[in-house]
Amino acid sequence: MKELIQPSLLADLQIKWTRLQEAMQLQHADGCLLSVDVNVYYTTAQIFSGYFYLPAEGKPHFFIKRPNGLTGENVHYIRKPEQLPEIFASVGLPMPESLLLEADELSHSEYLRIEKIFASSTKGNATALLRSCRQIKTPWEIDEIRKSAQAHQNTYSAIKACYKPGMTDLDLQHEIEYVMRRNGSIGLFRAFGSNMDIFMGSILAGDNAAAASPFDFALGGDGQHTSCPLGANGTLLTEGTAIMVDMAGNYTAYITDMTRIFSVGKLPEQAYYAHQVSINIQDAIIAMAKPGVACADLYNEAVRLVEEAELSAYFMGTKQQAKFVGHGVGIQINELPVLTPRSREVLSAGMVFALEPKFVLPGIGAVGVENTFLVTETGLEKLTCFEESIIEL
Amino acid sequence: MKELIQPSLLADLQIKWTRLQEAMQLQHADGCLLSVDVNVYYTTAQIFSGYFYLPAEGKPHFFIKRPNGLTGENVHYIRKPEQLPEIFASVGLPMPESLLLEADELSHSEYLRIEKIFASSTKGNATALLRSCRQIKTPWEIDEIRKSAQAHQNTYSAIKACYKPGMTDLDLQHEIEYVMRRNGSIGLFRAFGSNMDIFMGSILAGDNAAAASPFDFALGGDGQHTSCPLGANGTLLTEGTAIMVDMAGNYTAYITDMTRIFSVGKLPEQAYYAHQVSINIQDAIIAMAKPGVACADLYNEAVRLVEEAELSAYFMGTKQQAKFVGHGVGIQINELPVLTPRSREVLSAGMVFALEPKFVLPGIGAVGVENTFLVTETGLEKLTCFEESIIEL
Repeated sequence: MKELIQPSLLADLQIKWTRLQEAMQLQHADGCLLSVDVNVYYTTAQIFSGYFYLPAEGKPHFFIKRPNGLTGENVHYIRKPEQLPEIFASVGLPMPESLLLEADELSHSEYLRIEKIFASSTKGNATALLRSCRQIKTPWEIDEIRKSAQAHQNTYSAIKACYKPGMTDLDLQHEIEYVMRRNGSIGLFRAFGSNMDIFMGSILAGDNAAAASPFDFALGGDGQHTSCPLGANGTLLTEGTAIMVDMAGNYTAYITDMTRIFSVGKLPEQAYYAHQVSINIQDAIIAMAKPGVACADLYNEAVRLVEEAELSAYFMGTKQQAKFVGHGVGIQINELPVLTPRSREVLSAGMVFALEPKFVLPGIGAVGVENTFLVTETGLEKLTCFEESIIEL
Repeated sequence: MKELIQPSLLADLQIKWTRLQEAMQLQHADGCLLSVDVNVYYTTAQIFSGYFYLPAEGKPHFFIKRPNGLTGENVHYIRKPEQLPEIFASVGLPMPESLLLEADELSHSEYLRIEKIFASSTKGNATALLRSCRQIKTPWEIDEIRKSAQAHQNTYSAIKACYKPGMTDLDLQHEIEYVMRRNGSIGLFRAFGSNMDIFMGSILAGDNAAAASPFDFALGGDGQHTSCPLGANGTLLTEGTAIMVDMAGNYTAYITDMTRIFSVGKLPEQAYYAHQVSINIQDAIIAMAKPGVACADLYNEAVRLVEEAELSAYFMGTKQQAKFVGHGVGIQINELPVLTPRSREVLSAGMVFALEPKFVLPGIGAVGVENTFLVTETGLEKLTCFEESIIEL
């Protein structure tokens, strides 16, 4: 037998429950029912198969299918979700008149099944609620992110030692993955949305950085196999190649994101120029960003600096250009807020986001810097601290 | 510019399209619209962001959002699915009266969006259609599975050399993962269903094999982190520990599944006894299985042999026992058919499944053998060939 909720995490979880309840009350929702892994982890600091139910007022209930042996207040074991109304009735929990379900995450069939069980409730979108609340990190979440950032830095410090002449991008990636795992990487790399297939991160060397990908990540790459067309493709690392290393900071459930550029020998002057523009954009955004600033304004400032530097044709890709320069991180790599021209989000203290102004230079590869930042009361704190210039291998 | 469909794969893809069309005609469906990665890969041998549409008669159409630059017959670029009716009309493709959508895989919101675009069509379940057709592998798929099996064997041959005294299960797993990647593992490990989080496979040492997991895999394990409670948990590999290695055969898009048991020193006699029972079950199922045999009968035969050996309390777990002894493999690790007591599937030539009779022995760990088999016209062909006795490290 094991406590479902770790006592040391209860106070932090209560912060999240309260925020979710306040948000539900604002939209006149009576409860939310969650079963998707990232939302279950967010609200319980555990993964289980079953349902987390939070009423708009009162304490949460935990309906667990597997694993067996978990205990705690309001922990109910079930075989199937059809048992929920009976348990609601037996513990005096009112059936919600308005219920939020994970509409953007549950499969259509799963959704219909739950919808039928709560046939008398009107339905709203719990995915939107969760993604909105998950933007603002709690003290424990920030600690977890700091741990990931520290391990991320430790791994990046070892990259130079991973390189041997004659390697391909994939060879280098395998060495870095090995270091990551030895440094505690959990391996899993969670992303929001369907078909966002990525394994442990991305290394782009030379012109592979320009290859268009089906995915909604910043850059592409042909990938190693047609079934996973993203990232390293076996490019030999030769003199003059820019090597963009964007490997996951998945050392806790909370991911950091960091990109650094390495080179074999010196790169053409254009690479150092564009790389410096990326650092200048980062500096400009650090100077601007604080609670109350609009994410769209940060994007627009980045674009203004790119235009001023006459690098628009290379910004965030060439053949296919991504229309963002940053994104929230947390349990998933693509959380809110997003730094896009159409973003309606405004920075708040406790948000954590990655800023990644990148350029793809034909014949050279990708350059630019990416770091993960915490929004504080007064500005930004950089969480991923490591040499930012182009590092010669 | 690049051909969407590789010319060398066209004939094999046509086999799949024809099977899907025959199945659609039987259920009076006019077409299926697919966008989930595994189904897009199945029908095109590519991953793209967009939609694959197959009418019940005639040629498929490809509606592509990303990547740009793909060409071929019936390739249409779109920005959003709302453009589909207009393109259908412009190329003279009738709107389906009955349309199959991936109800068990699309999110509810995605499903509703497509449903609205095809408002005049009745809807059926494309997930069920695809999972059924994907059971019977084509010649090219079987070749891909054979390639994975060969690389899988190569990796398992290297496991003994990976071990050093003083290692934990995680240390050993990191070494094996490194060998896997050097041997061409794609890394991604695709599973059907929500929340089936697994990274590269599972190693279970000693009593960690008995830990109940939230997931629907054969066995559990506490895992390395609360956010991924499955598999290795840092158990020290000591004298008398059984070490179950069940690492993914993900060397092509088509996965093989293979488990072998390793030990540090000798194990108690019970381990060799139960392991031999597992091999006997495998032999019995090899002797029975051929086209026309019911999967439930294979499961029941396994259970009969387990009872005869008086090992029921340890079969497929102890605290939480899985009610199956085998499962189809392909692009995902948990395809059809399943070897369960309630399975309605009957073996057909071209099916590929993993058979995994396993026992969890308190104080020792997990034993048993798992192999991937191809159903031929006359019986089973074992695809994963490697030493099956308990291997001393």
